[in-house]
Amino acid sequence: MQAIIINNIQSKEIATGYFAKLVHSEKMTFSFIQVKAGYAIKEHSHPHEQVSIVQKGVFKLVIEGVPVEFTDGELVVIPANARHSGIAITDCELLDVFTPVREDYQKL
Amino acid sequence: MQAIIINNIQSKEIATGYFAKLVHSEKMTFSFIQVKAGYAIKEHSHPHEQVSIVQKGVFKLVIEGVPVEFTDGELVVIPANARHSGIAITDCELLDVFTPVREDYQKL
Repeated sequence: MQAIIINNIQSKEIATGYFAKLVHSEKMTFSFIQVKAGYAIKEHSHPHEQVSIVQKGVFKLVIEGVPVEFTDGELVVIPANARHSGIAITDCELLDVFTPVREDYQKL
Repeated sequence: MQAIIINNIQSKEIATGYFAKLVHSEKMTFSFIQVKAGYAIKEHSHPHEQVSIVQKGVFKLVIEGVPVEFTDGELVVIPANARHSGIAITDCELLDVFTPVREDYQKL
């Protein structure tokens, strides 16, 4: 039994400017993201439920057309299949958690 | 759409000395825990998969008899139904994520 040292994981660029250290358990994917201010993710959806936590910075999501800006110590639940986009208002550290596993991320 | 401000959530004492701010999504439970050094959780198991992340401090888990000590920026995956116990080696801030939802925590 060993702990996983997040900093030792090689980052993958999951979208332009979004560098993620990925951990997959059996049923969840943890995506520890670093992104610089101004980088955006275009609107998309997926069948996975997603919870986004800002660990540092200010991030803006638009979920089903409704904007929400959140910062350190705040989180947002994105229901399965909800259309959402995002933009880093400042440099950010984010933790996105998905269930089930993001099999598309496993292939990166 | 509103962000959830974790600090605004009332803490629940989920085990002696373990004060948790709980967020339940449809399929996951997020437990943001503060615990002082020395408090232990006795061995138990549950059908939920669990991922434990240390955000500050040093925590020790024993999973199926195997010890693992972990610290800031490290995480441990506890498989569903695995027997595990834990102790805070120092004052700790932890994030435990479960799937499915911890219905027992929803009743606290």
